[in-house]
Amino acid sequence: MKISDLSKRSGVSIATIKYYLREGLLASGESTASNQADYGDAHVRRLRLIRALIDVGEIPVASVRSVLHAVDSSSISLHDAFGEVMHSLGGAPPQAETGETGETGVTRPVATSEVQAWLKRRRWSIKPNAPAPHALAAMVDTLRAFDFPVSVSDFDAAADAAEQSAELEVAYARAMADRTAAVETMVIGTIVYERALAEVRRLALEAVSARLENTATAGPRRRSRVVTTAR
Amino acid sequence: MKISDLSKRSGVSIATIKYYLREGLLASGESTASNQADYGDAHVRRLRLIRALIDVGEIPVASVRSVLHAVDSSSISLHDAFGEVMHSLGGAPPQAETGETGETGVTRPVATSEVQAWLKRRRWSIKPNAPAPHALAAMVDTLRAFDFPVSVSDFDAAADAAEQSAELEVAYARAMADRTAAVETMVIGTIVYERALAEVRRLALEAVSARLENTATAGPRRRSRVVTTAR
Repeated sequence: MKISDLSKRSGVSIATIKYYLREGLLASGESTASNQADYGDAHVRRLRLIRALIDVGEIPVASVRSVLHAVDSSSISLHDAFGEVMHSLGGAPPQAETGETGETGVTRPVATSEVQAWLKRRRWSIKPNAPAPHALAAMVDTLRAFDFPVSVSDFDAAADAAEQSAELEVAYARAMADRTAAVETMVIGTIVYERALAEVRRLALEAVSARLENTATAGPRRRSRVVTTAR
Repeated sequence: MKISDLSKRSGVSIATIKYYLREGLLASGESTASNQADYGDAHVRRLRLIRALIDVGEIPVASVRSVLHAVDSSSISLHDAFGEVMHSLGGAPPQAETGETGETGVTRPVATSEVQAWLKRRRWSIKPNAPAPHALAAMVDTLRAFDFPVSVSDFDAAADAAEQSAELEVAYARAMADRTAAVETMVIGTIVYERALAEVRRLALEAVSARLENTATAGPRRRSRVVTTAR
């Protein structure tokens, strides 16, 4: 297809497509006699992946390049490729702002060893350089700074549920004949389901907050008019 | 306490504290005779809230101001304040990049009416201008563009779990005597638990991917050496 059709199919403007071509995020189309380039379904999928990484994953263009490099690198195992993608998505380890650390740079979250013990107990094999354990420990530190009585094992129920759905998701991706499609699927599943589940959680919080506000008839707080769209 | 002690207690540099004071994100300390300002525990909490919004919520300083405005605005109900915060966090409705829409701007995700029907069935009251239903619909569209066989009701199990934990979380916040602390708690709970659960999900995906890679003895893919920290 022509670049104009690629733009229509993907919903990405021609100017943006040309930018991705220049930046090397998108492979060139096949040259045709008429001095045009011919694009295929792989280009449509790749454009959607790039948009999902930028719009949903909210990762900068420079990091998109390293994610795509991992997607395309056929010399490493599927698991290692997925790990690379996770690390690109994870970004730099978050800085613990809650400790009495001053400005001396990145500090190890206090809950790190608790998270490591928890991973060991769950028998979850995580690469040493993965950002997720560090990030989870930093979140636990933050919750404790706000007096939430939280322990890492409070996440066991969520972890069980996540493990069950991960079994289906990873098996679905690995069963694909096309390696590129398999990694793409794991990336999309990771970032889009993550965002979707966060939105479900926000909706639940708003719905519960509305119900509790409505049933709070006593006390100093006035009742609010709850506007509903859902009924 | 002096600004230097506030910096130590909060882990935020003096220069950054002064920037927040200039930007009106942090209330001034009480003036003392010695031409210094005196800060209290409320300042420590507020600084931690600002850092959580910026570091965990990844929202720009301008949006932090509107979140804090909602936190401090005592003229609206607790539920409305929480709604304001949610909307500030949600940002602009995402642009659907997966439809055949060209560049005509923000489009309504295809799955919007499906999400609305789902909310109605769950009897979840959501404000009409809330960004979350739109965002969830956009995620469903994106998954479908990648051939995930997904329907909104697939999120029912996650929604049940989210509703249960929201009951505890919102009741915990509403029970607080101090209104500011109640809203702060809801904000922190929302963004930090969200991030923590996302990290748990990423860890589950990596752990399952490692296990499936290790047990894949046949097929064209070579076995990878799985590096473990967790055993």
